[in-house]
Amino acid sequence: MIHAKPLRSFTEQIFRAIGCSDTDAQLAADVLIAADLRGVDSHGVARLPGYVRLFDHGRLNPTPTIRVVHETPSTAVVDGDRGLGLVVGPWAMRVAIEKARMAGTGWVAVRNSNHFGIAGYHALLAVDHDMIGQAMTHAAPLVAPTFSLDKLLGTNPIAVAIPAATEPPFLADFASTAVAYGKLEILQRKGQPIPEGWAQDADGRPTTDAYAVKNGGALLPLGSDREHGSHKGYGLGAIVDIFSGVLSGANYGPWVPPFATAGFMTADEGVGVGTGHFFGAMRVDAFRPADDFKNHMDTWIQRFRSAKAVEGQRVLVPGDPEREMEAQRLVEGIPVHETVLKSLEELGERFGVTL
Amino acid sequence: MIHAKPLRSFTEQIFRAIGCSDTDAQLAADVLIAADLRGVDSHGVARLPGYVRLFDHGRLNPTPTIRVVHETPSTAVVDGDRGLGLVVGPWAMRVAIEKARMAGTGWVAVRNSNHFGIAGYHALLAVDHDMIGQAMTHAAPLVAPTFSLDKLLGTNPIAVAIPAATEPPFLADFASTAVAYGKLEILQRKGQPIPEGWAQDADGRPTTDAYAVKNGGALLPLGSDREHGSHKGYGLGAIVDIFSGVLSGANYGPWVPPFATAGFMTADEGVGVGTGHFFGAMRVDAFRPADDFKNHMDTWIQRFRSAKAVEGQRVLVPGDPEREMEAQRLVEGIPVHETVLKSLEELGERFGVTL
Repeated sequence: MIHAKPLRSFTEQIFRAIGCSDTDAQLAADVLIAADLRGVDSHGVARLPGYVRLFDHGRLNPTPTIRVVHETPSTAVVDGDRGLGLVVGPWAMRVAIEKARMAGTGWVAVRNSNHFGIAGYHALLAVDHDMIGQAMTHAAPLVAPTFSLDKLLGTNPIAVAIPAATEPPFLADFASTAVAYGKLEILQRKGQPIPEGWAQDADGRPTTDAYAVKNGGALLPLGSDREHGSHKGYGLGAIVDIFSGVLSGANYGPWVPPFATAGFMTADEGVGVGTGHFFGAMRVDAFRPADDFKNHMDTWIQRFRSAKAVEGQRVLVPGDPEREMEAQRLVEGIPVHETVLKSLEELGERFGVTL
Repeated sequence: MIHAKPLRSFTEQIFRAIGCSDTDAQLAADVLIAADLRGVDSHGVARLPGYVRLFDHGRLNPTPTIRVVHETPSTAVVDGDRGLGLVVGPWAMRVAIEKARMAGTGWVAVRNSNHFGIAGYHALLAVDHDMIGQAMTHAAPLVAPTFSLDKLLGTNPIAVAIPAATEPPFLADFASTAVAYGKLEILQRKGQPIPEGWAQDADGRPTTDAYAVKNGGALLPLGSDREHGSHKGYGLGAIVDIFSGVLSGANYGPWVPPFATAGFMTADEGVGVGTGHFFGAMRVDAFRPADDFKNHMDTWIQRFRSAKAVEGQRVLVPGDPEREMEAQRLVEGIPVHETVLKSLEELGERFGVTL
């Protein structure tokens, strides 16, 4: 167990060591630690070596000039100048919030960025302004559309954050796949099979092999198979890809560059510039008085949370599990897997930073 | 088999018979027949008796004064004045398109409406203006959130329509459930069980009973169970409900009024006014030149459609199956189920219209 504070400080120092400004290093560390605190371990400090590898390969600019390249009253396209997605994301979200202040809503498509951490972090930024926040991103292809053998989509998450009055915000943040890839890795480490409906093998057949994706198979869209609506999960992932990639001028589909774990692609090989994201902010009082809205959100949340549940279970509102985990980990600390710890210590040695 | 033309004319005459204007009757018939042509039989003329029942119960105003009750440069709230959702939907979508013309995007929340037919019809209206269209609606509660025994959400569909250059538009239009309720009814008529993962029984257990929902059970969110991501389908349905209901001032969650098939609720019993929807239009050139965008959409569509497929299958782009069905039914006619035909003939007798 490591407490959030030293982990954040270590992460911040690593980002500074590769050349990020103090402000950017602080922000990037905050996004990563937020993931660890909320229990999204795959998107937290476990990714830090990956960001450094991006830097080593010249794909990450630690001092980017992020800028708006096109805009209308309610939209903007942002070029991330190969900056950290962890920094480009909040920058673009601020633009969306400013647009919403003037025009009611703001929508920002981003190109030339990298992995932006957890989508929910960015979406939540709008909530303090009495706005509904949205954040989505595509990612390197691991997912096969319904009936496809080719992997053409990433896990392409969507987050929507909605303010309430006395209740904490509603926060849905989910990949458009049946499961995140991290869940396969957990079962790989345990030497256990995966449930059917998570992945397909190289011939597109259902499989329980935890290594299926590595062996030429693919993750399955939310819905798992055609009979249970996988074409809907595929549609959702496709929308995220088009908003993040085609609207922004980034790459898309099978051309989205890998995070940092596989081969690297030069800009010339793609159909656009880097990785893309899409953000939105909607002022609640662009629709009805903010207090009315937030009071009704309380009613909504309380009605759902008090639903009659299956024996031994509770009905949760999106955001509840992550918030409960955060409260616990702020006290008890964050469990860092030994392979992750080892990779962090290696980074520490390289840059002269101790954890 | 009945051809689209006489079916449309019959439907139009029924809408006129209950007091709709010529224009409204024509539009409403067009929305319903579009569903039948695209193979979404549950949302076509099969619903006509339901709309008439709404009228009989005083819940449908055939001559509504639809109006904008609040607006900002990029948003509006529309009160449908208890009009046909089939008419209120395109009206609100026009407002969204006009807003987008000026502000880059337009977002319209609707209250005091009724069932609006297929979401895809409305989303597609934006495409001719080189805009991305979005349409969503909540509906009467049939769906249990993950671990819930209570039915708190409707099948809450989302449609996103995206223009391309030489390819037909991308059109994703899907319920946030594993399957539409209509699929259970088909297996009821055949006396067959349903696959596990579509519904739960009254105790929240997996079931293959095609009558489960009628017997106190519920439809399941997309993802079917927790292990396969049902909390994501639940999150998606919740977002649709909040955008359609809480933003607009309509009812929401378990308070969304039934379409026309069950008991009726007075306005006093709810938490808002009637049924709600949510629409969006985003000008493509609010992000990048329209031709650039549409050419890249062609590349996207062609890459996905040419993916290597599981033996005996094709990889489709969202919108393909419905468009193929439409081409076929425009020639061969629309198969109208005998119980539907009988109910239409009864309507015809009542209003003196022949099919």
